[in-house]
Amino acid sequence: MSDVINIAEKFTQFSDQWSPKIVADLNDSHIKLAKIEGEFVWHHHEHEDEMFLIIKGTLHMQYRDRTVTAREGEFIVVPKGVEHCPKTEGEVHIMLIEPKSTLHTGDTVSERTVKEYQRI
Amino acid sequence: MSDVINIAEKFTQFSDQWSPKIVADLNDSHIKLAKIEGEFVWHHHEHEDEMFLIIKGTLHMQYRDRTVTAREGEFIVVPKGVEHCPKTEGEVHIMLIEPKSTLHTGDTVSERTVKEYQRI
Repeated sequence: MSDVINIAEKFTQFSDQWSPKIVADLNDSHIKLAKIEGEFVWHHHEHEDEMFLIIKGTLHMQYRDRTVTAREGEFIVVPKGVEHCPKTEGEVHIMLIEPKSTLHTGDTVSERTVKEYQRI
Repeated sequence: MSDVINIAEKFTQFSDQWSPKIVADLNDSHIKLAKIEGEFVWHHHEHEDEMFLIIKGTLHMQYRDRTVTAREGEFIVVPKGVEHCPKTEGEVHIMLIEPKSTLHTGDTVSERTVKEYQRI
């Protein structure tokens, strides 16, 4: 667990989109990496803040009242309870940090919901 | 809280070393940025894992039985209870993610211990 994790190298290990991979445990949270492209589903997390760190590309985080744009080297914390829907320009690589209990689609269970995350 | 945080821009806002700045809240944790140079103090955190993401430079994380080296784009999770002592080559910029309760020097209170973290 105390080894060095190279983020770019981890991203070479998978190509499926909207399917976060666990790369490390951090207290009650998981550190996950994901490749995403296009628009996700609107959802919120009742009790959990969610951090999106942009490793590559441009992410538009849509909220009901506005959209914020994050690029490589930037991050967003989506506060608990706030409805959001990520949308990208091309494929975007992100690091997610969120409680182990978090389902990535939050309150919205859809065909995109991944219930068990793969570890890489 | 749902704004975009640009890591490089935050690093232009301070120059003091070994004095982590809080840039965001994430559930029970803080996201902090720090500039560090040289060798820190040996310490451990009894109940908390600590994440070091390298934004710039090269960090040698010394454990009692080995040393691991992390460079830009890499991260380390130091597991709870494990004694460690960061050491750098020149100035290194890091992002730290750790529970709000964490004192950066862990069980070792020294002249370097910062008890109240500044927010930027």
